Order: sequence, then C-alpha cells, then structure tokens
Amino acid sequence: MATIKVYGSTYSTVAMRVFAALYEKDIEFEFVPVDMRAGEHKKEPIISLNPFGQIPAFEDGDLKLFESRAITQYIAHEYFDKGTQLVIRDSKKMAILSVWTEVEGQKFDPAASKLTWELGIKPLLGMPTDSAIPLSRAISFYATDFFYATEPGKTNKIKKGNEFINRV
Amino acid sequence: MATIKVYGSTYSTVAMRVFAALYEKDIEFEFVPVDMRAGEHKKEPIISLNPFGQIPAFEDGDLKLFESRAITQYIAHEYFDKGTQLVIRDSKKMAILSVWTEVEGQKFDPAASKLTWELGIKPLLGMPTDSAIPLSRAISFYATDFFYATEPGKTNKIKKGNEFINRV
Repeated sequence: MATIKVYGSTYSTVAMRVFAALYEKDIEFEFVPVDMRAGEHKKEPIISLNPFGQIPAFEDGDLKLFESRAITQYIAHEYFDKGTQLVIRDSKKMAILSVWTEVEGQKFDPAASKLTWELGIKPLLGMPTDSAIPLSRAISFYATDFFYATEPGKTNKIKKGNEFINRV
Repeated sequence: MATIKVYGSTYSTVAMRVFAALYEKDIEFEFVPVDMRAGEHKKEPIISLNPFGQIPAFEDGDLKLFESRAITQYIAHEYFDKGTQLVIRDSKKMAILSVWTEVEGQKFDPAASKLTWELGIKPLLGMPTDSAIPLSRAISFYATDFFYATEPGKTNKIKKGNEFINRV
C-alpha cells in the first residue's frame, strides 16, 4: 500500500520510535531518508510537514504529522486491530502507562538526549563537546532527578510500569 | 464525594493544568496544599505518591498518579461523560491534537518554564537569577525553534490546532 511515508534518518532515535511502532503494528511504509548533515531537514518537503524543521515527519494519505510521540500514538489508535496491541482501553491502567510515558518524555529523555548528543554524537561528527557548565547540569539533573527515583535501596524507588499496572 | 485529592500549590502552573481539567469536567476534589518553600514536596506523603518529589500528585480512590499531563489525560478519559467534552474519538483528529500537545510539552514549555523561573519566580523569591549562559540558550531556543515556527509573515508559520483539525 505504502500510503504511509516516514521522513527520517536511521541514525535518529526519535525516528526509531516511529519505525518501532510501525513494525509492531506490521504496517508497510515508505522510508524517505533525510540527510541532516546537508541540512535537508530545514528545507522542503520537511519544512512544510514540520514547521520546526525536524525529523521524523509522517504522512498517512492526506494526514501529515510530526512529533514522534504523537505519531506513535496515532499509529497505535488508527491501526488498533493490526499487529501488536498497543492501546489499553481501561482508563485506570492507561493512566499508569501515561504517567511513565510522561516520565520518559519529560524526565528521562531531555537528560539522556543531552548526554548522548554531547558525549556520543558530537565526537562522532567531529564537533566540539559543549562547555562543561550545561553538561554538568544535565548530568546533575539526570543523577538527582532520575537516579534519585530509581536507585536500588531507596525506599522510594520507581516501580516498573508493569508492577504499577498489576497493582491497579 | 471528594475521593479525588490534588496535592499541589496554587502558584504552580503544572498543578493548574490539573485544576483546569477538573473544573472543565465539573468534578469535586479535595485540594491538599503543599508548601514547597518548606520542602514539603520532598517529604511524605508526596514522596510516596511521586518518587521524583514534585507536585502535582493525584489520588482518585486507590489510583495514585503524578505528571500533570498524564493526570489531565486520565481525567478526560475516566470522566468522559461529565462536563466539557475533552476527548476526540476520531483518531485522525486526535492525532492533530496530539501533535500540538507534544509541541507544548516538548518545545514550548521547556523554554517558557525556564524563562518564567529565571525572570519571574526567582526574583519574587529573592533568589539570584542563573548565570547568563544557560539563560541565553533558553532564549535562543525559544526564539529560533518556537518563534521560527510562529512568526507572522513566515511562509511556514504554525497553524492553530483548530485550523489543522478543520482541514482533516
């Protein structure tokens, strides 16, 4: 069918979110590679699909989406009956899942992405690592906010999503 | 009924999200004030409700939630039949709404919160504003990423959610 197009890069972890959802739902799609080193994400057709000039961008027929988490939500709901079941209909169990989805988006990812970019991607591309100040802040945030909640032995350690769901 | 409890502060913009959802759905709730200046958010009962030690925290009977956006999603779905209708059942229209919900959470809020904290809240509390480097980065991000997409006259200016939804 290939009415679905994903504009992205195989190096992009945010694009991988979309690929993962499509593979889980067993949906055919066309991959349109975007060369970010050449700045293609700031040009057409991406800039008309995503005004922020970022990947992934997504088309399903006439529907045009961006923001990887919104795209995965759409795939899960629109293709409810295909492949792996990704939607929980019980609103209380769904709420527990939403909590940890938000923890990923609001807590884990900002710190982890910053560290990955500075310590992993930039050296690969031959770009200088950022000055120590913001980097140490990211590490500090990651350590205090995320590890605070997960460190073994802490009485308040985070329970995994499944444990929470099983308690509902 | 008051089985619903919101632990928060009337000064907290993230807690306001939850209050707004409850008011829109016309749901009674108990407000439990948390004195953040006294560090109450890092102590019981908050720390057992939210391992990150942040407000708002939320209880609906046995269900305990945190992360303001997850709480508002829960309220919208669990109390579907009450008050203002906040859920769109059409998955394509819902996807458009999700895109702009993610733009709020991933693009607008991180930059706007940083600026509000440094330029608004800290002076109110008599705290020193952060050094210029990270602040200028936040402003730069806000200017390039957010205003880039909204500046009038730009051909790629963001359309309001309603305009997008009406096109679907």
